[in-house]
This record gives sequence, C-alpha cells and structure tokens, in this order.
Amino acid sequence: MERIMERLARQLRFVNEIDRLKSVLRQTTLVDSSRRENSAEHSWHLAMMAVILGEHAPPGTDLNRVIIMVLLHDIVEIDAGDTFLYSPDAELAEAGRAERAAADRIFALLPAGQAHELRALWDEFEDRRTAEARFARALDRLQPILANYHTGGGTWHSYGITADQVLVKVALIEEGSAALGGLARQLVATAVEQGILAPARAIG
Amino acid sequence: MERIMERLARQLRFVNEIDRLKSVLRQTTLVDSSRRENSAEHSWHLAMMAVILGEHAPPGTDLNRVIIMVLLHDIVEIDAGDTFLYSPDAELAEAGRAERAAADRIFALLPAGQAHELRALWDEFEDRRTAEARFARALDRLQPILANYHTGGGTWHSYGITADQVLVKVALIEEGSAALGGLARQLVATAVEQGILAPARAIG
Repeated sequence: MERIMERLARQLRFVNEIDRLKSVLRQTTLVDSSRRENSAEHSWHLAMMAVILGEHAPPGTDLNRVIIMVLLHDIVEIDAGDTFLYSPDAELAEAGRAERAAADRIFALLPAGQAHELRALWDEFEDRRTAEARFARALDRLQPILANYHTGGGTWHSYGITADQVLVKVALIEEGSAALGGLARQLVATAVEQGILAPARAIG
Repeated sequence: MERIMERLARQLRFVNEIDRLKSVLRQTTLVDSSRRENSAEHSWHLAMMAVILGEHAPPGTDLNRVIIMVLLHDIVEIDAGDTFLYSPDAELAEAGRAERAAADRIFALLPAGQAHELRALWDEFEDRRTAEARFARALDRLQPILANYHTGGGTWHSYGITADQVLVKVALIEEGSAALGGLARQLVATAVEQGILAPARAIG
C-alpha cells in the first residue's frame, strides 16, 4: 500500500501540473470566434477526432495509441508555449529545442517506468515515422484548417496565409490519411473559391 | 469514394458541433483559480487521468474504453448545460432527462452505425454497471476533489459543502477503484485538518 501511495503521489503531481495546459493559448479561435482556443481543449478535440475519424487511417493503425498520442502531444507547451504552424523555420527549430527540454522536465514528474513509456510516445509523435504518428499529425494539421474554414478565414486572414502555404501542410495530412488529405484539399479549393483564402502569392 | 465523402461529411458535422463544449462552464476553477473550467478541457484532463492512473483500476479493466468514455461523457452538456455535483436530487433527475434528449440529438449527427456505438458507450457510462464505467465515474468524481484541494477549498467554500457530503461521492470513487477511493478519503481528511473543508454539519 505504501508503494502504491508513493506512485500515486508522483502521478498526482503530474496530473496537477498539466492543468496549466488549459492556460496556453493557440492562434486558432473557437468555431464561434468568441475567443482563442487553448491547448488542453484542442487536445480533447483531436482525441475526439481520432475516435470519430479513425476509420480513415490506414488499415492496421492502432487507434488507441493515436488517441493517447494526441492527448499528450502538446503538454510540452506548458513550458515552451504554442508555436504558430506558419512560423519561419528558424523559429520552429528553436521551438523544437524548447519542447524537448520541456518533455525532459514534465514527464520526469511521473514514476520512472511510466515517464519513459509516455516520453517514448511523445517522441514517436514528433518523429512521424509510424502510421500512428502520421495519422495523429494529420489530425493536428486538419483541425486548424477546419477551424479556419468554419470561421470564414480565421488565422489565414490574420496572418496573410495563402493557399500554397496551406497546401504544404495538406501534403502532411495526405501522408497520414488519403481520405483526410483529399478532404483537406477540397476544403482549401472551396475556401479559395469562396474568397476566404487567398490563392498562391504571385512570385515576381 | 463518394460513400467515404458522405460519411466524412456527417462526421465533420459532429466534429464541428462538439466545438461548443469548449463554451460550457463548470463550477470548478482551474488549479491556479484564474477562471472557471470548461467541459472540453475537463474531459481532456479526465482522459489524461485515465492514462496516468489506469493501473489503479481493477485488473482486466479495458482502459481504452474508459478513455473514450470520459472523452465523450460530457458532450450532452452542449444542450443540457453542466449540472453541479451537489444539486438537489430533483434537479439532478431533470438534468438526466435533458441529457438523454441531448444524446439523442447529438450522436444522431454521425453515420448510423457509429452513432449507435458511441451512444451505447455514453449509456454505459451513465448506467455505471461495468468496471470501465465505474472507473470512468471514479475519475470524474476525483477530479473536482483534487481541484478543490489544490485551490484551498474551491467549490466546497463557495457552496458551503461539508465533509460528509464529499464522502458520499468518495463512496462512488471506491466502487471504481480501491486505491483512488483511499486517496480521496485521505484528501478529505487532510482538507478538514487544514481547515479548507468544514467537517460534517451538526444535526440538531
């Protein structure tokens, strides 16, 4: 019983610490545009998307792993903050370093075996080498496209993002799921038609 | 492909609809007391608790089912609103009716087979007859106790809740997990000692 209580104490420290993810704001707003979304509710939405859209993953994909991956993929933002998807490469690289340091600190709150197991899942998501990681990343890329589409432009407008930039992210969705990639491509085309997303920037 | 696109269209309607759970406020605040918690981020926190505390469920409990259950258990609040845990019984019964009507509407947005499957999981959570449902409910009862404990009283103070009332909920936690029940009992005792939770109301 003492051993259980000791494990529980460490686990509760982690459970308590990750409450802070509810205060990390993303660039994306809620669908009703009332406020910016936070990373905890975003992670919930992704996990629900994994449940609902799981049939569009390649056959044999372990959806339970996908769900856990998306639940924990953003907890490093407690230390590192949210990085905007369309930041310059140098900024994204710096953010990557900060996120790895955050993962070192936060997962270490847990009992050692569990810390190792969940850190490995987080690394898997980052490395994007397994079908599970690619599908999880596809959901993470699809969600802001849906949000921007449903809010009449959202961060596409506020940051002057053009269709060619969005299509680079769509390629990553296609790597995780052909059906979701096709859907994203369709949403981008419709958004351009409706004038809520600017077409490719002219190069001159 | 057309069939896939038709399924996807229904699934996206559901994914879009549940965004509204991010605007349903609970009585509980964040651990830093900065604001009230919403039901979407609460559901994320419960799913993370299922991942982290799963080893304290009875042997044989299917944790993947528990995770999906807690992810979707609150979506009925989109229509029915959040019901405070310590509301009078008549209010809780009325809320139960409103929640079942909400489940009828919201799950029906999905393709029929999937609607049926997820609705069954939601019913299972409500009925509390399986080990999975009892463990999921235990997490749902434990989370506000943790939040109140870490915020120096929280809703215990604002609603004049006493230890005997909290212990009724602790009995439900024990039904789902002996270890988490023991933990909750310990937290209640410590909270009374520290003066952040009033002892049982004197009956006179």
